[in-house]
Amino acid sequence: MAVHSHPARPAVLGQNQYGKAENRVVKITRDGATHHVKDLNVSVSLSGAMEEVHYSGSNAHVLPTDTTKNTVYAFAKEYGIESAEQFGIHLARHFVTSQEPIHRARIRIEEYAWDRIETSREGAHSFVREGRETRLAQITYDGEKWEVVSGLKDLVVMNSTDSEFWGYVKDKYTTLPEAYDRILATEVSGRWRFNWTDDAREMPDWEKSYEQTRKHLLQAFAETYSLSLQQTLYQMGARIIDHRDEIDEVRFSLPNKHHFPVDLEPFGLKNDNEVYVAADRPYGLIEATVLRDGCEARIPVDLTDL
Amino acid sequence: MAVHSHPARPAVLGQNQYGKAENRVVKITRDGATHHVKDLNVSVSLSGAMEEVHYSGSNAHVLPTDTTKNTVYAFAKEYGIESAEQFGIHLARHFVTSQEPIHRARIRIEEYAWDRIETSREGAHSFVREGRETRLAQITYDGEKWEVVSGLKDLVVMNSTDSEFWGYVKDKYTTLPEAYDRILATEVSGRWRFNWTDDAREMPDWEKSYEQTRKHLLQAFAETYSLSLQQTLYQMGARIIDHRDEIDEVRFSLPNKHHFPVDLEPFGLKNDNEVYVAADRPYGLIEATVLRDGCEARIPVDLTDL
Amino acid sequence: MAVHSHPARPAVLGQNQYGKAENRVVKITRDGATHHVKDLNVSVSLSGAMEEVHYSGSNAHVLPTDTTKNTVYAFAKEYGIESAEQFGIHLARHFVTSQEPIHRARIRIEEYAWDRIETSREGAHSFVREGRETRLAQITYDGEKWEVVSGLKDLVVMNSTDSEFWGYVKDKYTTLPEAYDRILATEVSGRWRFNWTDDAREMPDWEKSYEQTRKHLLQAFAETYSLSLQQTLYQMGARIIDHRDEIDEVRFSLPNKHHFPVDLEPFGLKNDNEVYVAADRPYGLIEATVLRDGCEARIPVDLTDL
Amino acid sequence: MAVHSHPARPAVLGQNQYGKAENRVVKITRDGATHHVKDLNVSVSLSGAMEEVHYSGSNAHVLPTDTTKNTVYAFAKEYGIESAEQFGIHLARHFVTSQEPIHRARIRIEEYAWDRIETSREGAHSFVREGRETRLAQITYDGEKWEVVSGLKDLVVMNSTDSEFWGYVKDKYTTLPEAYDRILATEVSGRWRFNWTDDAREMPDWEKSYEQTRKHLLQAFAETYSLSLQQTLYQMGARIIDHRDEIDEVRFSLPNKHHFPVDLEPFGLKNDNEVYVAADRPYGLIEATVLRDGCEARIPVDLTDL
Repeated sequence: MAVHSHPARPAVLGQNQYGKAENRVVKITRDGATHHVKDLNVSVSLSGAMEEVHYSGSNAHVLPTDTTKNTVYAFAKEYGIESAEQFGIHLARHFVTSQEPIHRARIRIEEYAWDRIETSREGAHSFVREGRETRLAQITYDGEKWEVVSGLKDLVVMNSTDSEFWGYVKDKYTTLPEAYDRILATEVSGRWRFNWTDDAREMPDWEKSYEQTRKHLLQAFAETYSLSLQQTLYQMGARIIDHRDEIDEVRFSLPNKHHFPVDLEPFGLKNDNEVYVAADRPYGLIEATVLRDGCEARIPVDLTDL
Repeated sequence: MAVHSHPARPAVLGQNQYGKAENRVVKITRDGATHHVKDLNVSVSLSGAMEEVHYSGSNAHVLPTDTTKNTVYAFAKEYGIESAEQFGIHLARHFVTSQEPIHRARIRIEEYAWDRIETSREGAHSFVREGRETRLAQITYDGEKWEVVSGLKDLVVMNSTDSEFWGYVKDKYTTLPEAYDRILATEVSGRWRFNWTDDAREMPDWEKSYEQTRKHLLQAFAETYSLSLQQTLYQMGARIIDHRDEIDEVRFSLPNKHHFPVDLEPFGLKNDNEVYVAADRPYGLIEATVLRDGCEARIPVDLTDL
Repeated sequence: MAVHSHPARPAVLGQNQYGKAENRVVKITRDGATHHVKDLNVSVSLSGAMEEVHYSGSNAHVLPTDTTKNTVYAFAKEYGIESAEQFGIHLARHFVTSQEPIHRARIRIEEYAWDRIETSREGAHSFVREGRETRLAQITYDGEKWEVVSGLKDLVVMNSTDSEFWGYVKDKYTTLPEAYDRILATEVSGRWRFNWTDDAREMPDWEKSYEQTRKHLLQAFAETYSLSLQQTLYQMGARIIDHRDEIDEVRFSLPNKHHFPVDLEPFGLKNDNEVYVAADRPYGLIEATVLRDGCEARIPVDLTDL
Repeated sequence: MAVHSHPARPAVLGQNQYGKAENRVVKITRDGATHHVKDLNVSVSLSGAMEEVHYSGSNAHVLPTDTTKNTVYAFAKEYGIESAEQFGIHLARHFVTSQEPIHRARIRIEEYAWDRIETSREGAHSFVREGRETRLAQITYDGEKWEVVSGLKDLVVMNSTDSEFWGYVKDKYTTLPEAYDRILATEVSGRWRFNWTDDAREMPDWEKSYEQTRKHLLQAFAETYSLSLQQTLYQMGARIIDHRDEIDEVRFSLPNKHHFPVDLEPFGLKNDNEVYVAADRPYGLIEATVLRDGCEARIPVDLTDL
């Protein structure tokens, strides 16, 4: 019998990071009576020479998380918020370059979109929150290379036809009937990694990139005649890789939001794919990465957002 | 000393109601390759001659909650879902008129809106969930009179200027500085009661009424130069009463989603109403009813939705 | 055809209230190295002569919600927190008696319980949050009479046998099979109203009353052989009325957390009430008031907590 | 300027997995009138030869997620639920050994604990949900090696003294005053990896291991005089490594649930560490791995639970 444990060996510190999470910053930019709003939730995570604070409690290398919060608000004034990605780049660069013990900074941002309310009065400073998806950005910097991963979550989509599911494996626990016309619905959680990694190269246009990537994933979802949610997922990722040169990797986590046709026969009624129950749990969960051929996969298997 | 308690007196049953809550029904209507979707969450609540089931456990008067669930799905097929309100009227009438022990039915409905995804292919059966507000409807019927209360929740709005707050009472616990240009933001929860109460009168156009009422409340929020959130609330309600003859009562619950200007002076920066922290808790909570003069207030003080 | 609407009539203000909601206050009391903790979420709601702030925006009668927040924290120091109810009584009395325009104050409190962590070191100042239920208290004062309603929410209970459901009404939409041994589970939300209403009478012992009422409702749930959840609910309420003289009214909202036996026959297995699926939605919802005979029902039909 | 993008390269499939998430299974074991309950939320995730279903939509290698759900319920009958870990091992082994295209199975389980309700009647089949923490288990099997990671989340703990924070880095954005007696509170999310990896070795006693590990982390939290949350975190991990031979790696994610002393001076009161505001956002977030020396770190940087 092999022995794998080593109880005599003591504990040591492994990977660690710290910072202030969920700094809610709203930036109003006034162009006369026309206002613009950026509404972010910013989380800072720093790593580096942090052994001492763990082993002895010495904070000599620790920039307080409260300071990282202050920096978020100060930078909103100093740099403005052109895009979530650009704002994160300013922050990450600052922490790594201004604090010797900090070797890596990761900034995570949620962005909430606002539309304008139409009014009869002059000026444009009334807004209604666009509740659809939450936009995401993660910026990581180690003093040399950048990694930018953008994405979204909570985008709920549905095709009410053009979806089938049959020809699958049947074992002794299989009872599912095959389906030749079903609803396909999911709540998209997606992340995409940019191939921009160093300051010597020109940055992507982050706002345009987001808008176009979102459009491609929505259209691929809608235009794919689906034989499985896996196939639809792959088409969504491939469409982005094919159309957006700045992106090398996409990962999706797609819960299959089941819509089951209700059996109305006990009531003498025929349900011709008209009446569905929208189920909560359990749900199929389909997750995959789509890569530009030859590129490295770096987005973690399990997506997280804060 | 007055004596108010009567410990010798036994327990008796008071108001009671029961039913199946949160039946998630999705109805697809196919007009060739163009599909239409109605997505509801329906809760049924029945009252009547229900003493025995409470006192002895006899279910002789009890239509099972499972049956009320089945009825929701069967009616989606039998009647379709023209509007949440009309669907609730069908259900409430059925329970009260078909079951002798049931004297009152209350149907509560949440409705989730879907937009179409633009595609290049033929047909129109791809949708993205409009995440903004949740539409609400409550239909109550006692066999004679109807009460219909519609509404919405989770509609987040913001004015980035044209809001002040000053001239208030100052006591020994008051530290708040007066504000002459602040952000005013809230998450609107509103309910409005229709004056349609009997079958002899023509029903309102429920879909048009919702759309117009929502428009008026948004515009009143945006167009009111605000000296307090109470004033804005009243204007939102009065605008609806003035423009929608079918509505006699409106109630709003408006949390003041505080956006505090960040003090940037410690960093040598001036915050000219540009950078705000969006706070979570605590929050001001402003609640009020606006009535058509002479009409009775029937919407409860505390709004609930399921 | 009757005419019920009066479009010509203008809008007027109805019931209204305002205050700061969800003030999170933690009070540490130090008895040497032994510490005690009270952890509350306090919401203040004030009513009175508030027409002007709604009609014209004049804040001359408005004590700012920020001040009500400050008062919560100051009173935690000045009076301590003996119990949620007693703390709410101090607050409500203060607002009504110190501010002429305020005619009614309602204080709502959530309380989170903490247990001690056993340690080998001296002192007792380490705690783990008892996550079971949230305790609730609502104190209302109009300058003359008190109304105190206490309660709890989120208390999940289950009987794995001694529950049946049969003998119910069957209509054309009924498909449910009768059950002679089922799981009965619910998430208790309860409120109970005290008959203490004026300062001339001695207050109940709020802490003991809560502890005993909670015990009685748990035991009544466990000890009732159930023929319907309505019957169990009534027994829970009646047990409280019978044992607690200080309480005249109880209301429960009990979602029937369905546990359905899984059909294992397709897999050649017999499910002898062993394996259940715990369902989310929909759920039966049973709500009722139990009163001391002759007492007035004052707890609203729909329970709310903040 | 370096060129890093390769727009001409096509999309390819990367890591992928699928299965049914959040299967809610409740198992009642009857020992006469004494019942025992296991209450789990089980998520299945399978990987293997799944290229075709992504590229072409062929489901020839796909065991339906519905079948994985059925298997969970059937196995609860066939094997019982001795512990979450043992149950996951049965499931993972089944999927990998019975389905040729499946090369790896990962089972994730949440477990909800129940206590007994004390009653005067015979039998023991009434329960109240212990709401404190949620227990977690993750079992991964590739046909050769096992990886078992257990853990918990939502365990809220607090020390009301014996915590300081000073001696930290001060830059131009630092405004935080040093603290020499503060509240330290966090909501523990922890994961620990077992060194049991192959069937030839004897399995740990999963239930006892959980109970002891939880005890050690609680005591280390309570007994560490804290100079920083990082130090406390390390002590919690090291205590587990030192006392539990079966565990080689621990990772914690500890939000610093800030409790700020309220400034009562404007009201003429002194706050001697008695009255605190419990803040929501933002919060410090401290994350780290503690390893047995020489062992590999395998728990991902970002903890996820379903």
